[in-house]
Amino acid sequence: MVKGRLRVAILGVTGMVGQQYIRMLEDHPWFEVTTLVGSRSAGKLYGEAVEWIDSYEPPKRIMEMPVNVADPEGEDVDLVFSSLPTEAAHQLDTRYAARFPTVSDASSYRMEADVPLLIPEVNPDHLGILDVQRRNRGWRGLLATSPNCTATGLVTVFKPLHDAYRIRKAVISTMQALSGAGYPGVPSLRIVDNVIPYIKGEEEKVAAETKKMLGTMSGGSISPDPMDMAVMVHRVPTIDGHLESAYIETERPVNVEEAKEVLREFRGKPQEMRLPTAPERPIIVREEDDRPQPRLDRMAGSVPGMSTVVGRVRRGVDDHSLRLTLLSHNTIRGAAGNTILIAEMMRELGYLG
Amino acid sequence: MVKGRLRVAILGVTGMVGQQYIRMLEDHPWFEVTTLVGSRSAGKLYGEAVEWIDSYEPPKRIMEMPVNVADPEGEDVDLVFSSLPTEAAHQLDTRYAARFPTVSDASSYRMEADVPLLIPEVNPDHLGILDVQRRNRGWRGLLATSPNCTATGLVTVFKPLHDAYRIRKAVISTMQALSGAGYPGVPSLRIVDNVIPYIKGEEEKVAAETKKMLGTMSGGSISPDPMDMAVMVHRVPTIDGHLESAYIETERPVNVEEAKEVLREFRGKPQEMRLPTAPERPIIVREEDDRPQPRLDRMAGSVPGMSTVVGRVRRGVDDHSLRLTLLSHNTIRGAAGNTILIAEMMRELGYLG
Amino acid sequence: MVKGRLRVAILGVTGMVGQQYIRMLEDHPWFEVTTLVGSRSAGKLYGEAVEWIDSYEPPKRIMEMPVNVADPEGEDVDLVFSSLPTEAAHQLDTRYAARFPTVSDASSYRMEADVPLLIPEVNPDHLGILDVQRRNRGWRGLLATSPNCTATGLVTVFKPLHDAYRIRKAVISTMQALSGAGYPGVPSLRIVDNVIPYIKGEEEKVAAETKKMLGTMSGGSISPDPMDMAVMVHRVPTIDGHLESAYIETERPVNVEEAKEVLREFRGKPQEMRLPTAPERPIIVREEDDRPQPRLDRMAGSVPGMSTVVGRVRRGVDDHSLRLTLLSHNTIRGAAGNTILIAEMMRELGYLG
Amino acid sequence: MVKGRLRVAILGVTGMVGQQYIRMLEDHPWFEVTTLVGSRSAGKLYGEAVEWIDSYEPPKRIMEMPVNVADPEGEDVDLVFSSLPTEAAHQLDTRYAARFPTVSDASSYRMEADVPLLIPEVNPDHLGILDVQRRNRGWRGLLATSPNCTATGLVTVFKPLHDAYRIRKAVISTMQALSGAGYPGVPSLRIVDNVIPYIKGEEEKVAAETKKMLGTMSGGSISPDPMDMAVMVHRVPTIDGHLESAYIETERPVNVEEAKEVLREFRGKPQEMRLPTAPERPIIVREEDDRPQPRLDRMAGSVPGMSTVVGRVRRGVDDHSLRLTLLSHNTIRGAAGNTILIAEMMRELGYLG
Repeated sequence: MVKGRLRVAILGVTGMVGQQYIRMLEDHPWFEVTTLVGSRSAGKLYGEAVEWIDSYEPPKRIMEMPVNVADPEGEDVDLVFSSLPTEAAHQLDTRYAARFPTVSDASSYRMEADVPLLIPEVNPDHLGILDVQRRNRGWRGLLATSPNCTATGLVTVFKPLHDAYRIRKAVISTMQALSGAGYPGVPSLRIVDNVIPYIKGEEEKVAAETKKMLGTMSGGSISPDPMDMAVMVHRVPTIDGHLESAYIETERPVNVEEAKEVLREFRGKPQEMRLPTAPERPIIVREEDDRPQPRLDRMAGSVPGMSTVVGRVRRGVDDHSLRLTLLSHNTIRGAAGNTILIAEMMRELGYLG
Repeated sequence: MVKGRLRVAILGVTGMVGQQYIRMLEDHPWFEVTTLVGSRSAGKLYGEAVEWIDSYEPPKRIMEMPVNVADPEGEDVDLVFSSLPTEAAHQLDTRYAARFPTVSDASSYRMEADVPLLIPEVNPDHLGILDVQRRNRGWRGLLATSPNCTATGLVTVFKPLHDAYRIRKAVISTMQALSGAGYPGVPSLRIVDNVIPYIKGEEEKVAAETKKMLGTMSGGSISPDPMDMAVMVHRVPTIDGHLESAYIETERPVNVEEAKEVLREFRGKPQEMRLPTAPERPIIVREEDDRPQPRLDRMAGSVPGMSTVVGRVRRGVDDHSLRLTLLSHNTIRGAAGNTILIAEMMRELGYLG
Repeated sequence: MVKGRLRVAILGVTGMVGQQYIRMLEDHPWFEVTTLVGSRSAGKLYGEAVEWIDSYEPPKRIMEMPVNVADPEGEDVDLVFSSLPTEAAHQLDTRYAARFPTVSDASSYRMEADVPLLIPEVNPDHLGILDVQRRNRGWRGLLATSPNCTATGLVTVFKPLHDAYRIRKAVISTMQALSGAGYPGVPSLRIVDNVIPYIKGEEEKVAAETKKMLGTMSGGSISPDPMDMAVMVHRVPTIDGHLESAYIETERPVNVEEAKEVLREFRGKPQEMRLPTAPERPIIVREEDDRPQPRLDRMAGSVPGMSTVVGRVRRGVDDHSLRLTLLSHNTIRGAAGNTILIAEMMRELGYLG
Repeated sequence: MVKGRLRVAILGVTGMVGQQYIRMLEDHPWFEVTTLVGSRSAGKLYGEAVEWIDSYEPPKRIMEMPVNVADPEGEDVDLVFSSLPTEAAHQLDTRYAARFPTVSDASSYRMEADVPLLIPEVNPDHLGILDVQRRNRGWRGLLATSPNCTATGLVTVFKPLHDAYRIRKAVISTMQALSGAGYPGVPSLRIVDNVIPYIKGEEEKVAAETKKMLGTMSGGSISPDPMDMAVMVHRVPTIDGHLESAYIETERPVNVEEAKEVLREFRGKPQEMRLPTAPERPIIVREEDDRPQPRLDRMAGSVPGMSTVVGRVRRGVDDHSLRLTLLSHNTIRGAAGNTILIAEMMRELGYLG
């Protein structure tokens, strides 16, 4: 244990996102993984329990740590990251939050009125809702959440455009990577030479979460943004990286070159605070005709997988509309990476005690 | 030569679409392939020249036919199918059309004012423009064209919806198959574990061709439909079958169940005339959440590859909008099959002399 | 029920192989599916229970049949096809065999001394062991088995070469399709942009089953062939069709052109008897440098999926060795198709009562 | 130009291997890229000429360098790396070698009697043949070559086994990555849902090169090793990393655990000399049943892509045979990386002047 580091428990540690937590926290300056929690694998060592599917090799220290059954009341840690399956998260996230600062990328509590749903660059002010949460719930800890892996990149790109032009309507079509379905996830027989135009519950989640994150905070509650959103999701045979095509209509007239500049210039609190997991640029704009592409761009940027890459910014159907393509790494910025960034921001703002 | 059959020349016969012509005309009741034309392969036998990439094995008769250099003035046939590359088509399609009824799936002349761009179920009345063409050009033959492989399925689905509800705006996102890029086409290194959000010129073509085909014919010219269209195209690693997600806004209110009925009931002239290559149902509507899928549905229907499969018909953002997913086989209905169907209709209507 | 047809029960009917039974028996002249048995799906209609993953659409009659729990003592059928998982097959195959002629493609009883393991073209004489089986077991029915999907094509090709040249040693490397792992089978995250050099228990099975099928029957028992076999298996991202490269050493000198002739001329009892599911040629020899290929050749031949395609027949390291590549459809000839062919042969030979 | 660094020209710099040279030499302590040579792209800047297909982004300095036409007599450099296509290499490699130390991964001169074919860990003594080369050719420079991308990993693994057990016969089956075919290389339509059991000339090259590299040097010439080799090659849909299954027969009896130790302990001159591009371990042995796998293991080791990963070491058919699976990165150790390592070794041994 390095002195001064916060002790971290990871819930759901053998899953796809759990594996990203292990990788991203290996040399973290502030956080140190001290507790591994998994349901089916409890009692085994991590190295026995995990079906590791990345070329990165996990550290020996972690491979030899035991995986424990969840024990919210018995844990002794400073911070909890949860990437439990929805059901389990529904039962456990609040029990952990009652005692510890807990940041979850599960969907279970994202839409609760007193739970902030955060992208640190986009809506850090929504942290304010934690005061309400504490009053409501009487917890010693707290619960913050990270959005759906499809909403993360989308909202990052929408934020500066919304501020500049006010988005009235958005039509989104996604081409989502296999790792977004977890492990074992999509059977290979379903996806070789194929595309599946459906992911259960995803379209509703993306629309609702986007509106919440772009919503305004006032008087202890968040009013969702009123934009119209039509989302159409698809699973494609890529390993990592959700590609999304967006058509937007704006209140104010929009100029393509200016819009690219707006995206390129976007910075948020994590950049300002120089957080360890903050990429230099939250949004990378490419000028080539045929970018972003998942295999080439998903690890772009100064912190691989934390930047959203945007390309093909072009006219929509008139001066009040725009088309663009964006790519966001679904298990990094779309899950573990964003959650870690939330925790880093909360630490700097004094929320971790 | 079977008596009474029309003698057919195929231009660009060694390409991906050329191979579909060979397959679809093998036992055709009205047409018989008697001349093969190809540029790079001229002088070889077809079996030597072609890089066959389908599990269907071409007939011995064709494999042993010579591939000739183009000779529009010297040919002796009754009908010409052209699937030449754009450049070559630009030079040769009109020279063939000057002497023979010619149906082309090349893009070169699709947008010419006096050249009909046809889906037989959608706009058979546009054939009327051929009178103008003959007056203008003084040809003994004629030139009709078949649309871009992405527009074909799209317009087939839009036609009945447009008639019923009047489409005002459409946002389309495509996931297009590899065979749409011809052969050799997309290098494998570009597309394994990847999606490419760009196909040169495709977005403009799809929008312009859709508006022309849904346009109204009057006084010897076609006025394009005024709908707004935003098209966003992508190449995905599927072999055949273009998948497209559409969001539409309509003038009249639209009910989901009724819209499905409208699609299901759609029939056109080819069905009425019982043309040999006409599918029983131009549109097949699936009720499952996760259909259509390219690998499962691209060969659906009574004439494999000729029906468009529609699924996930659902609400857009209000009562005047709709989302749906459609799938159309790009080298069959999107090219060779539609062209053959045009020729069949023209024969029945007396255009083939 | 068509008069005169045998009533068939399919065990494990919702799996990958079960789906092939449904397809192949749809219009079978002698057999009619009357009973569907599945464990997890019992109580549902077939259409609700099955995760259909083929472009072929199953007939409405079957989709509306109930799936029953296994009830060997209560069934009323003339013939049973079993494609149960190994565990279930271990418990149920013999209980069904005690009452009905049962043909199984499960591995559970393949290596039992009194159970024939059959490829109808290769070792029909092994049916003779059924006399011993009846004496041993006192069954009213019988149990015959179909080999591992990797052994089927291999042994079909080895049989004529073994007869002609006597194989002393064989080194086999396989590239096996995803459907060989059943459904859900291989997670897509494991196999996109990847090859897995391992399939549990497969190398041992292929070697042992090959030797049994090429073994000689005498005095009521089968002596396995003594050839040396080294098998190396791999899973690759193809949907269907196991590709195998073989290096063999022979006792007698082998000439490449002659060996191709030997393969080409090979015929067996199913061809002689003109069985409904027998392909005209059990082995198709291709002369091209780059064939067979799974996507192009897996459905080759007069009964799609029932022929083994061989190519690249070439010298090994001297005059007593040979290299070649073979392809066999793993769920057709490698499972359902071979099992049906066994039953057809048994019917003609009077084994089905 | 960093003082003391050798000035390097790269021939064929826009190809797949050329791109690896750029990446691997970016921060090289001894070598600095000062000249880019390419035929089709001459006259353009590198950034315009190259079709970059890796997620690594090349440095700005290189992107803005001009690509020149080959000019062997006019160049001013200290070292030449050639990855020209075979034809061009045939014409240019010797012209460059006449003036400069040249290391080539083209196949053109690999089998010449006075040209060393090198894997630095395997046969550094073959450098001695350069004395003969100088006498024969009267060059101021020299020509050394790097083997075929399939032979590199194979020979690395064979070397210690051959020393320990003397290999008498080897049967190799390969599953080769797409990048091995260069760019554009394999059309995607050929390889999705497919395997191609053929690569032109590859089987002969692998056998001949393996025997040369394992051959003994004496009296100014290299006698190829007499082992029997049967090679069977296949192209599979992986991006990078050639997987190979090997069956070997040995003169001395071989024990599986001991053989793994022999592989694990293998070190060569590059490790001894601590060359910048030398991996700590030339061979990494994995104990898991299902490794190596291309996507997980191709970048393993201390210098990514330079180690060969071996797994599934197991008994062959008796005590004098063995089966194993190996993986080697085809554009790193199989081309650019091995060539750089050769140059590093030559520098330390005083061959670079």
